[in-house]
Amino acid sequence: MEQVEVSPPQPMEIRIKVVSTSLCRSDVTAWQSHAIFPRIFGHEASGIVESVGEGVTEFEEGDHVLTVFIGECMKCRHCTSGKSNICEVLGLERRGVMHSDQKTRFSINGKPIYHYCAVSSFSEYTVVHSGCAVKVSSLAPLEKICLLSCGVAAGLGAAWNVADISKGSTVAIFGLGTVGLSVAQGAKLRGASRIIGVDTNPEKGEKAKAFGVTEFLNPNDSDEPLQQIIKRITDGGADYSFECIGDTGMMTTALQSCCDGWGLTVTLGVPKEKPEMKAHYGLFITGRTLKGSLFGGWRPKSDLPSLVDMYTKKEIEIDEFITHNMPFEDINKAFDLMKEGRCLRCVIHMPK
Amino acid sequence: MEQVEVSPPQPMEIRIKVVSTSLCRSDVTAWQSHAIFPRIFGHEASGIVESVGEGVTEFEEGDHVLTVFIGECMKCRHCTSGKSNICEVLGLERRGVMHSDQKTRFSINGKPIYHYCAVSSFSEYTVVHSGCAVKVSSLAPLEKICLLSCGVAAGLGAAWNVADISKGSTVAIFGLGTVGLSVAQGAKLRGASRIIGVDTNPEKGEKAKAFGVTEFLNPNDSDEPLQQIIKRITDGGADYSFECIGDTGMMTTALQSCCDGWGLTVTLGVPKEKPEMKAHYGLFITGRTLKGSLFGGWRPKSDLPSLVDMYTKKEIEIDEFITHNMPFEDINKAFDLMKEGRCLRCVIHMPK
Ligand SMILES: [Zn+2]
Ligand SMILES: [Zn+2]
Ligand SMILES: [Zn+2]
Ligand SMILES: [Zn+2]
Repeated sequence: MEQVEVSPPQPMEIRIKVVSTSLCRSDVTAWQSHAIFPRIFGHEASGIVESVGEGVTEFEEGDHVLTVFIGECMKCRHCTSGKSNICEVLGLERRGVMHSDQKTRFSINGKPIYHYCAVSSFSEYTVVHSGCAVKVSSLAPLEKICLLSCGVAAGLGAAWNVADISKGSTVAIFGLGTVGLSVAQGAKLRGASRIIGVDTNPEKGEKAKAFGVTEFLNPNDSDEPLQQIIKRITDGGADYSFECIGDTGMMTTALQSCCDGWGLTVTLGVPKEKPEMKAHYGLFITGRTLKGSLFGGWRPKSDLPSLVDMYTKKEIEIDEFITHNMPFEDINKAFDLMKEGRCLRCVIHMPK
Repeated sequence: MEQVEVSPPQPMEIRIKVVSTSLCRSDVTAWQSHAIFPRIFGHEASGIVESVGEGVTEFEEGDHVLTVFIGECMKCRHCTSGKSNICEVLGLERRGVMHSDQKTRFSINGKPIYHYCAVSSFSEYTVVHSGCAVKVSSLAPLEKICLLSCGVAAGLGAAWNVADISKGSTVAIFGLGTVGLSVAQGAKLRGASRIIGVDTNPEKGEKAKAFGVTEFLNPNDSDEPLQQIIKRITDGGADYSFECIGDTGMMTTALQSCCDGWGLTVTLGVPKEKPEMKAHYGLFITGRTLKGSLFGGWRPKSDLPSLVDMYTKKEIEIDEFITHNMPFEDINKAFDLMKEGRCLRCVIHMPK
């Protein structure tokens, strides 16, 4: 814990008082990579607008917002296409600085502290580009909906927007963390008849049922290759498979676990190593499709408010993902729990 | 040229008097592989039903037919799904024998001669499963429409069924043989605004224009990587790319040549070597899709008759693909022309 100075928002930026922020695996992965240092992590968050920079008309002080790690400028070729959420202006930000001036808004004694994913929510206050925040209903509980800022939305969107799962279909999900279980929830709500969940952690089996998983497979329980088991029990392969681990070898397995003719594999995971995936051309020629999903295909400003409304109407489940709540000063416990795979989401609550 | 005995059709089979058959690259590839020997090649063909086996009600003597290398049983899970052409019963046949009894219908002095792709049209008569032939209008010229039995249909279908190219889009095609140029024709008919054709044969440039290619790229003309050139000239990448060579390295290049957000790569080619394709996961996560196409997604019996009708109504072009016509006895010339890349389609006409 350090005392950090957060400068006022520059033009088209807003300063947010963070209310709740949950720890996502990407924070841990990026922290372990030591790529940019020193920096403030955190990207799954909710908060209240504290002040707005010049030119900002979309937000005002007191607005409830979710932060987003991919922004939506609403103007570029991608934002206006209606079929992409890869904004050309505010897409995935990797350099730890603000878009407008390539500088940071955090500092300690004048020394810059870098941003993470254009959000940096592990701070009582943060500054983000106005395109990287989404105004949401003030009726929705901020301490819960922060999960819609990344993981839960990513999984639901992969199932609904990217795969467009149809009723009665068979789904295989590799990796039963928050994202994988959100895919399961999405599949269940679409009326999938079988949802096969795969994880090496045997404790996931029971938990996963609550989210719609109908069969649990632990690869360590059998010598038979996973794709062979799945093809056998589904009589030819799943209609859809989802890679939520971030393992390129598992992406291949997911593709092999899909059926001929219309099998669709969606990759959501971000590998820490071995970024190249390999696949025999025959998997494609026999009718399979491989598709990637970033934030579930959601365009944040356009789509997140209605996802929040679905939660307040109890049409989607979020609370079940929150396995731990803790005050900001206990944040390191959240990192430990995530590293050890003993949590789904730890929600970190900022001092009021 | 050898004298071969062609046995009568067994139950659910038909014997066809081949009228015209064109040489497809797959014939040459399979011939060079020496996998099964001796065998009769040829799979792109038209003919007239000479006799029908027991139980065949769909065909009668005199019917005009196209042969197909992937059959359609009309009954299996795939055939009835409405979304697959990978028939579980009569899909890609690789063993050179008939479906019903795993035997051949060709022999020389009692010694079996194997089939190829369930068709074997380089013979005056051939026997095929009734699911591997499609009845077509007797008004259509058999000496032309044989091209719809494989290559031309494969390309059109990849553009229409698999990619579903939209008006005004940008398309990149790798490999400008009959399949690649048929993709170009399909893209042009869908109103694509730019069709970039890639081939190492400089002579393809001029020819390709007739099929809709608007820009020709020869990778040997530049040191700049192909994907970089295409991304540069299209301001971010093509909307669709098609791999029609059968080179897994080029499949990766095709994927890299597509744009973020909605770029779709369709692989049609069948590699002779290196069957594994590799791709950085980031290509998918930023919104690209990789999809395979076998026979352009056409379900032969359901779809080919209307494709034949489109030709007779001059809605699609076939004649331009026929660069050579020759009698059956000159078939080796066709193999030479194909190996040397000096033809699109050589149509081989059987003795009357
Ligand atoms: Zn995240
Ligand atoms: Zn944008
Ligand atoms: Zn062919
Ligand atoms: Zn079938």
